[in-house]
Amino acid sequence: MNIFIATIIENKAYLREDECHHCCKVLRYKSGDTLRVIDGNGKMYEGVLETATPKLCVIKIVAEIGKQVEDDRKLHIVIAPTKQIERIEWMIEKCVEVGVNAISFIQCKNSERTVLKHERLIKVIESAVKQSLRLYIPKLNPIIKFNDFIKTQNSGALYIAHCHHNFEKVEYKIALKNQANVTVLIGPEGDFTSDEIVSAQAASYKGISLGNSRLRTETAGLFACQAFKILND
Amino acid sequence: MNIFIATIIENKAYLREDECHHCCKVLRYKSGDTLRVIDGNGKMYEGVLETATPKLCVIKIVAEIGKQVEDDRKLHIVIAPTKQIERIEWMIEKCVEVGVNAISFIQCKNSERTVLKHERLIKVIESAVKQSLRLYIPKLNPIIKFNDFIKTQNSGALYIAHCHHNFEKVEYKIALKNQANVTVLIGPEGDFTSDEIVSAQAASYKGISLGNSRLRTETAGLFACQAFKILND
Repeated sequence: MNIFIATIIENKAYLREDECHHCCKVLRYKSGDTLRVIDGNGKMYEGVLETATPKLCVIKIVAEIGKQVEDDRKLHIVIAPTKQIERIEWMIEKCVEVGVNAISFIQCKNSERTVLKHERLIKVIESAVKQSLRLYIPKLNPIIKFNDFIKTQNSGALYIAHCHHNFEKVEYKIALKNQANVTVLIGPEGDFTSDEIVSAQAASYKGISLGNSRLRTETAGLFACQAFKILND
Repeated sequence: MNIFIATIIENKAYLREDECHHCCKVLRYKSGDTLRVIDGNGKMYEGVLETATPKLCVIKIVAEIGKQVEDDRKLHIVIAPTKQIERIEWMIEKCVEVGVNAISFIQCKNSERTVLKHERLIKVIESAVKQSLRLYIPKLNPIIKFNDFIKTQNSGALYIAHCHHNFEKVEYKIALKNQANVTVLIGPEGDFTSDEIVSAQAASYKGISLGNSRLRTETAGLFACQAFKILND
């Protein structure tokens, strides 16, 4: 049975307009049909489609069929978008499947891409949420300048992943374990500059080592996410 | 500096024909230029290009500049190719970056794809090897029938990852830790059939759980790979 993301008000679920079109036009659901909705906040419901138009779909909720508690440990991946956008799209998809709480984008000195289609990435997240049956929708933040980001994000355990050898680093197995709130910065293809690392350190970010392999930007993002999951599972 | 994969005979490195073309035509290397080669068996050398033609490139080795010992714990990912081949290609790329020793393909009852371009996948592996500076080239095996595979592969710790709830499973954290030799079977989009799981069990494969999320085929393959790496790191 298909799953849709909806706004729940009392015992009714309202699909977003793009979901309505998908529901009625693409999947041909008709009023009276049973379907599943998630609220993106930990709950899944089964309901009966009452109003079924491409602009408005209203579902009468019949039962709560799934519940997830919010993660007690949260991971925020902060990454410089790759030149090839597909690489970031699949990283987002995989991070959502494995489990991530927030994803932000930063514009760095060596960034080759500074523009992102936010709406498209939201869709990538939502389809991964439906596919993986994760009932919380991770937060996606628009791209901002590296220096602006490190000024604003300064709570929890803060790490910057880079390949420079002349800066101290914490091993990921120590860095990511038993932390309630972790932020990991992942640099662009050309890596962070020394200046960026120094600024991050001044904003109380510590260097983190993700192991011995030289990982691509998007692989590093997913590796940090899976390591956080596995080490705290 | 670019890295090439070469056959080493005494103090000379011979590039494969496709590497020769890439070296001379694409990257415009000329005789006298210095470049790096890896033998795919744990060593990286620096050398000087002596013969530089699109059909034959011979490098005089000057120094051994890198050495890796072979992993003492080996992971073999055995997966049913996905309908969209890009998904398998990126999984291969990421598994190589993170570290995998062998990848095999199986044709299952629910497989939507039974044909693979082996040569193309070899190229994906080789470019990931160069990019990640891993000096061992993982083995890639052509696609065979599920039942033929489980008959042949029967040494080490054998696992089958599936989403059926009516079969016993070992948690990945126990299953993948401290094992010298692990094989993990990953099913197609439609999962393994009950019959396939029963056959695998008869061939002494145990069920493995990769956590609570419902992972896509290619995500499951990479997750198993990263979990093996992280749990034994």
